[in-house]
Amino acid sequence: MMSDLTPPTRRELLSMIGKIGGGVAMYQAMTALGHAAETQFVGPPKLGGARPGSTVLVLGAGLAGMVAAYELTKAGYKVQVLEYQDRPGGRNYSVRGGDKIVEVGGVTQTVGFAPGNYLNPGPWRIPHHHRSLLHYCKLFGVELEPFIQNNHNVFVHKANAFGGKPQRYKELAVDFKGHVSELLGKSLSAGALDAKVSKEDKEKLIEALREWGALDGNLSYASSLTVSSQRGYDQAPGGGVNGAPTPSKLNGLSDVLSSGVWTQMAFYFNYVMQTTMFQPKGGMDMIGKGFYREVGKMVRLNTKVTKLAQDDKGVTASWQDLKTGQMGESKADWCVCTIPLPVLSQLDLQVGPKMKAAIKAVPYANQVKIGLEMKSRFWEENYSIYGGHSFTDQAIGLISYPNNNMFKDGPAVLLGAFASGAGAYQLAGMTPEQRIEAALAQGSVFHPAEYRREFLNGASVPWPRMPWILGCTSRWSDASRAEHYQNLVAFDGRIALAGEHASYYGGWMEGSLLSGLDAIERLHQKAMAT
Amino acid sequence: MMSDLTPPTRRELLSMIGKIGGGVAMYQAMTALGHAAETQFVGPPKLGGARPGSTVLVLGAGLAGMVAAYELTKAGYKVQVLEYQDRPGGRNYSVRGGDKIVEVGGVTQTVGFAPGNYLNPGPWRIPHHHRSLLHYCKLFGVELEPFIQNNHNVFVHKANAFGGKPQRYKELAVDFKGHVSELLGKSLSAGALDAKVSKEDKEKLIEALREWGALDGNLSYASSLTVSSQRGYDQAPGGGVNGAPTPSKLNGLSDVLSSGVWTQMAFYFNYVMQTTMFQPKGGMDMIGKGFYREVGKMVRLNTKVTKLAQDDKGVTASWQDLKTGQMGESKADWCVCTIPLPVLSQLDLQVGPKMKAAIKAVPYANQVKIGLEMKSRFWEENYSIYGGHSFTDQAIGLISYPNNNMFKDGPAVLLGAFASGAGAYQLAGMTPEQRIEAALAQGSVFHPAEYRREFLNGASVPWPRMPWILGCTSRWSDASRAEHYQNLVAFDGRIALAGEHASYYGGWMEGSLLSGLDAIERLHQKAMAT
Repeated sequence: MMSDLTPPTRRELLSMIGKIGGGVAMYQAMTALGHAAETQFVGPPKLGGARPGSTVLVLGAGLAGMVAAYELTKAGYKVQVLEYQDRPGGRNYSVRGGDKIVEVGGVTQTVGFAPGNYLNPGPWRIPHHHRSLLHYCKLFGVELEPFIQNNHNVFVHKANAFGGKPQRYKELAVDFKGHVSELLGKSLSAGALDAKVSKEDKEKLIEALREWGALDGNLSYASSLTVSSQRGYDQAPGGGVNGAPTPSKLNGLSDVLSSGVWTQMAFYFNYVMQTTMFQPKGGMDMIGKGFYREVGKMVRLNTKVTKLAQDDKGVTASWQDLKTGQMGESKADWCVCTIPLPVLSQLDLQVGPKMKAAIKAVPYANQVKIGLEMKSRFWEENYSIYGGHSFTDQAIGLISYPNNNMFKDGPAVLLGAFASGAGAYQLAGMTPEQRIEAALAQGSVFHPAEYRREFLNGASVPWPRMPWILGCTSRWSDASRAEHYQNLVAFDGRIALAGEHASYYGGWMEGSLLSGLDAIERLHQKAMAT
Repeated sequence: MMSDLTPPTRRELLSMIGKIGGGVAMYQAMTALGHAAETQFVGPPKLGGARPGSTVLVLGAGLAGMVAAYELTKAGYKVQVLEYQDRPGGRNYSVRGGDKIVEVGGVTQTVGFAPGNYLNPGPWRIPHHHRSLLHYCKLFGVELEPFIQNNHNVFVHKANAFGGKPQRYKELAVDFKGHVSELLGKSLSAGALDAKVSKEDKEKLIEALREWGALDGNLSYASSLTVSSQRGYDQAPGGGVNGAPTPSKLNGLSDVLSSGVWTQMAFYFNYVMQTTMFQPKGGMDMIGKGFYREVGKMVRLNTKVTKLAQDDKGVTASWQDLKTGQMGESKADWCVCTIPLPVLSQLDLQVGPKMKAAIKAVPYANQVKIGLEMKSRFWEENYSIYGGHSFTDQAIGLISYPNNNMFKDGPAVLLGAFASGAGAYQLAGMTPEQRIEAALAQGSVFHPAEYRREFLNGASVPWPRMPWILGCTSRWSDASRAEHYQNLVAFDGRIALAGEHASYYGGWMEGSLLSGLDAIERLHQKAMAT
């Protein structure tokens, strides 16, 4: 709301610029206004009016498909969405007590979680800079709560480090930066870097290393209360007569290096992993359900597309209703196809060789997630761990502590595995029962007294064995990007592909949304031009 | 609950050990059980029964006084609590719309915040290892929510760095570790540290620096998409045709050093500042109110103690009712005195010279906090900042973004200053109006377009000018600890002191509680022995 007495807000200013100059101008203006270039999202697309009677067929009711349907409908297009599954959301979903997880070949788990508990098999955390996702969450009333990404009190485990005994992240990380600081400080003091660092910078840097690394007066990293005020104490500070703390022992350089803790330290600095992060209250599927409240009436569930054809007039999708067996066709002027590539590559698809080659060029990651319902939150009460991840070099990769209902009594679902690479192949190849047993055996390394004792039940989602996607997320290589990416995202006649695979944010909901928005902006331009 | 078929839980085991061997045995057992020595709290005290008719007078209804009153009453003591203020909680409080803030000399602010908004003038964040505080929060039904301590997207500002332009923490921190890694990597490669680092460690450490520092193949820290995947991009990744990101420019070593970012990097590693942290939902005073629900009936508010005397039979406190002017006396067998030292030092107190000297030996910090109510959460919408602190070398010290009601519309209270040292003296010396103006002028450096435009009203709490405490928190030096600490906490006849000042957790609620618990355990021992 503006009056001529009030200077425009940034959003209003950007909106004005966007109306005049479009998205690119708005993006440049954002940067010029001094804000970090955090996102390509500059607000929902302003498509203007569609030609009367224009129709769009959207394949897939995941986030890319639903955001396309939502914004196209707002612009005046008539939209139909065909969805293979019996629910919307795609990988944006949560499994709860009573849900069935069906794998390729028919192996079926029935989830036993208590009411209110859930596992987010797909996306599970939202970066603060994923502005399009945050925009639609707010628009659709999806409440978010903090996702505790970076917890200093979690464990790091490596079979060949510390005799296989997990160490607290804070101890390893403080020791790592302490040793690094000592070594660099002594190098600088000895003049070994005088050719590279000016005298003034050298003095400042030594001072920095002393403070950051908690070094002593000799630039040594040595056990002291100062160091313990970072890595923790042998006896913690207290009150009254026996309140005095005692310092903890330090790990030597070789031990710290054996832990590989720099991998975790770097992980927390990953742009998409940096705090502050969020999750929807009540489960990740709240986002898909938020979209579905808006577009549900245009979505046909349980509908398996078998063929997508096109000519210069429009597109035709042939499909079968999975509940009734009914066969049918849907026609429209344009198609936004968000079917994941491993499934799309098996479809009778009338597109040219370039898009076909691109569809086949992108392998999918094969993550496995396992949820373990425990009787109580022993990790909170006994270990002072509230959210965050304990990492291991075993197949499970990590265990992650729930961010909801902290301090509450009653059963809670721990993420017992987030496996990728070779570990995921191992776990995906097992039966559901074997997977749970592996998760219990491997996770016990962190919480040996409690892990099996508190276990109630578990559920696993092996992505490569999910029949509706046959993989978890696209994994472009630099080479495949260079050769195929533009061929994947370019319109082929009247068909555009969208989804995280058609973005540079592979595996993130933000990629799905930005891809869907980009596809419909181009669709609208083509529709208005023809 | 145990049966002979179930192995005891850790808590049950510790409880058994505690019953047999007391707190020290329990503490040793905790350590032996492989849990980090995170706290001296091993559960509430097990005092056993008091002698019938035993009485305790508690001075001060802050957390130390109320936990003493609560646990002593449970053990069978008859307790009276005298409190100077018209509310319980002491420094554990929140100011809300309509509240009055009265300074020494009578200067009074009436707080203008909207309903539901608050400022926590005293404690505002709870470490995950402050187990006694977490215990009583759970016991009294005080709901906690995450306090976003470590936000990578906040700003760091120094007047003499980057031409006074604030920089994002993530950019400075990634650049700092990049340059540190490059310099150490090149030192190692050149053999400058061969005398200190084994060949095997050297290879591992170079690999570690390459990954952690995001170095290139030549061990150089250079602009690339890899580095940008940590510090952020020039153009962020997106979807569709224009999805490709572009790398950001890096800051050179001199510029990074001018920012002093290592101070923030070290701050986040401070044991009491490490994630995960919490705050009570609805305001910090929920904790004091939780205690007060239990002990309120023994508390006499508005009661100014003027004298505390003792003989070999008991203690006598002389007081005046601040509302009615009534004078009175309260007698008991024992006294736990939690009056802050700057006030206690002015009291007619019948204790020996050692305790008197200790009371006078501890200076108090002089923090100032300022709350600024803003029309909207522009820091979230325009800057993608959700909680956390933007630091500055100006008097205000930092601004901190609210952790409650994220993504909501309507006014929100920003912490506009958390000043200490010289900055706090400056701000405390100002009128309330001048303080708000200073906070707006200085905080504008972070959010120049919005800060004054969105401002609604503000409130300040200058701790050295609060008549009931005359300072913020105790600040022991190593020298004063060595000389006076044990004299401060030791019983003087029938009087024991408690509070954060009688702990090694100065300024933390955990210190108040552990101090109060230690005092009553010793009180009980003395009471049973006499």
